[in-house]
Formats: sequence, C-alpha cells, structure tokens
Amino acid sequence: MRWNKLENEACSVARTVSVIGDRWTLLILRSAFWGLRRFDDFQADIDVPRSVLSNRLAALVESGIMERREYREAGQRARIEYPLTRMGQALGLPFMAMTAWGDKWLGDGISPLTLRSKSTGQKFSVALVDERGGRAQGSDIETVIDPRFARKRRR
Amino acid sequence: MRWNKLENEACSVARTVSVIGDRWTLLILRSAFWGLRRFDDFQADIDVPRSVLSNRLAALVESGIMERREYREAGQRARIEYPLTRMGQALGLPFMAMTAWGDKWLGDGISPLTLRSKSTGQKFSVALVDERGGRAQGSDIETVIDPRFARKRRR
Repeated sequence: MRWNKLENEACSVARTVSVIGDRWTLLILRSAFWGLRRFDDFQADIDVPRSVLSNRLAALVESGIMERREYREAGQRARIEYPLTRMGQALGLPFMAMTAWGDKWLGDGISPLTLRSKSTGQKFSVALVDERGGRAQGSDIETVIDPRFARKRRR
Repeated sequence: MRWNKLENEACSVARTVSVIGDRWTLLILRSAFWGLRRFDDFQADIDVPRSVLSNRLAALVESGIMERREYREAGQRARIEYPLTRMGQALGLPFMAMTAWGDKWLGDGISPLTLRSKSTGQKFSVALVDERGGRAQGSDIETVIDPRFARKRRR
C-alpha cells in the first residue's frame, strides 16, 4: 500500500490516518486545540523545524482542517494565522478520547486538560452512548459492517 | 523536540502520539480492531513490508498495547498471535471517534463500521457527556488546565 493511495481507501480510519496520521501534524493540532494560531507560536510550542511546520500547515489547509487567514491588529503589519475550521474543531472529540486514553494508560495521574460544564461544573468525558445518552455496556456491544464496504474491501 | 524525548512529555496527547502516532501503527491497530491477530494476516491486510510490521508489532508489545502469545491448534505446529491487551482494547474509543470524524468529513456516505446494542438494536456513538449522560452543548463547555501541568509546561 502506498501512502498516496491510502486516501482513496474505502475506510474512514484509513482516510483519517492519511490526513492526520503524522506525528508532527498531531502535535500541531494539539497546539491548535490549546488555542495557538500563528506560525511562530506553533514553532516555539513544539520546536518543529520551520520547513516541516510550513509543509504540515499547508497540508492541513489543503485538507480543510485549518484556514490560512490574514489579519491586522491596529497599527501593526498584516500577519497570517491558521485557525481551525469547523472540520478541524470537530477533531476535538477524537483528541479528547486520545487524551483520556493517555491519562489512564500512560499518565502519571495528572489529566492536563479537562472539559467541564460552565453552568453545572460537571466534568465531561468521552463515552460510547446510545441514542438516549445511556452508556454502552461492553457485553452488549456488537459490530456491524456495512455490506457495501465489505464488498469494496474484497475487491 | 526529539521523538525519543516525546514520551517523557507532560502531556497525555504527546505521550499517546509517541505510542500510536505512526501511520503503520495506526493501520495495524485498525486491522486488530477488525479482529486480526496473526503476522501474515496483518501483512496481507495492509500490505506493509515485513520488516516494518515486525518492528511495529514489537513496539506495540513493548508499550503494552498488544501481547505476543504462542498458541497451537490441534495437530498444528505452534504459532504466534498478537491479541490486543485491555490497554489496547481501550483504544477502541479514540478509534471510533476517529472513524466517526472520517465518516462525516472525509467519507462518501458509507460508515464502514458501526456499533450497536445487541439488546435494543440502538446505534452507539462517541460523544462528550456529563456525569449523568447528558450530551455537552458547545457553548457550555469550558477547558480546565491542571495547574501542575501548567507549571510543568512553563519549565
């Protein structure tokens, strides 16, 4: 399997991997979820070589996860920022799920980042839920493979 | 930042990325979630060079995500399989979150894999929920950074 072919694979995991499955890209996205938007801030935060950062940001813009936007603060020259698009913000859920896994299985007891409700103060967590919000029980979960996908896979 | 230093970073995302943030590793895990366990099955499924597969499986065993186990079917010679450990199975949630993101933002309308309840037939999905199972509303979510982590980060 060649990586440039991977994007066309009939599997959403493979497609997602082809877009974000690169360590630098994942770290850039992590910094973006921390609120960073500028080239120099990303560079300082993750100590990535400038050419690599430039290349990865261009790919993130190309795939629709970030936007390249010129902005100007009063009295300053124009600058470029890279905010997450709605598509990029939607990666927050997989990121929170990865973070929770890391906290539990690789962590040292510190959850660096938690999400909570402004109104009730309750902690939010990522979970597998049914249509009414009930949590899935391990023994009650079954996997369903779309038959169209099964056909694609066999080709 | 050097990759061998990344594992020690005080951030669960960075730690998770250091363990699974590699395209081949993500694809091996995808195949594992499909139920594959044997070297030759992984190799056929993702068409990965054998030396790369061997290297990635060793790293997955080393990090505790997979187990290397000898088994023997009646009348056959001993074979090796690589089942997911509990730690590895727990990656199912981040994987489902990635899949759902891919289905929505990169998909062609086919969700290759869905999870549903054996007892009620209801579809499960990955969501951000509060302690009582209520779904988080975008405008009500706030991010809380652990102060110990903020200190670590500033060093």
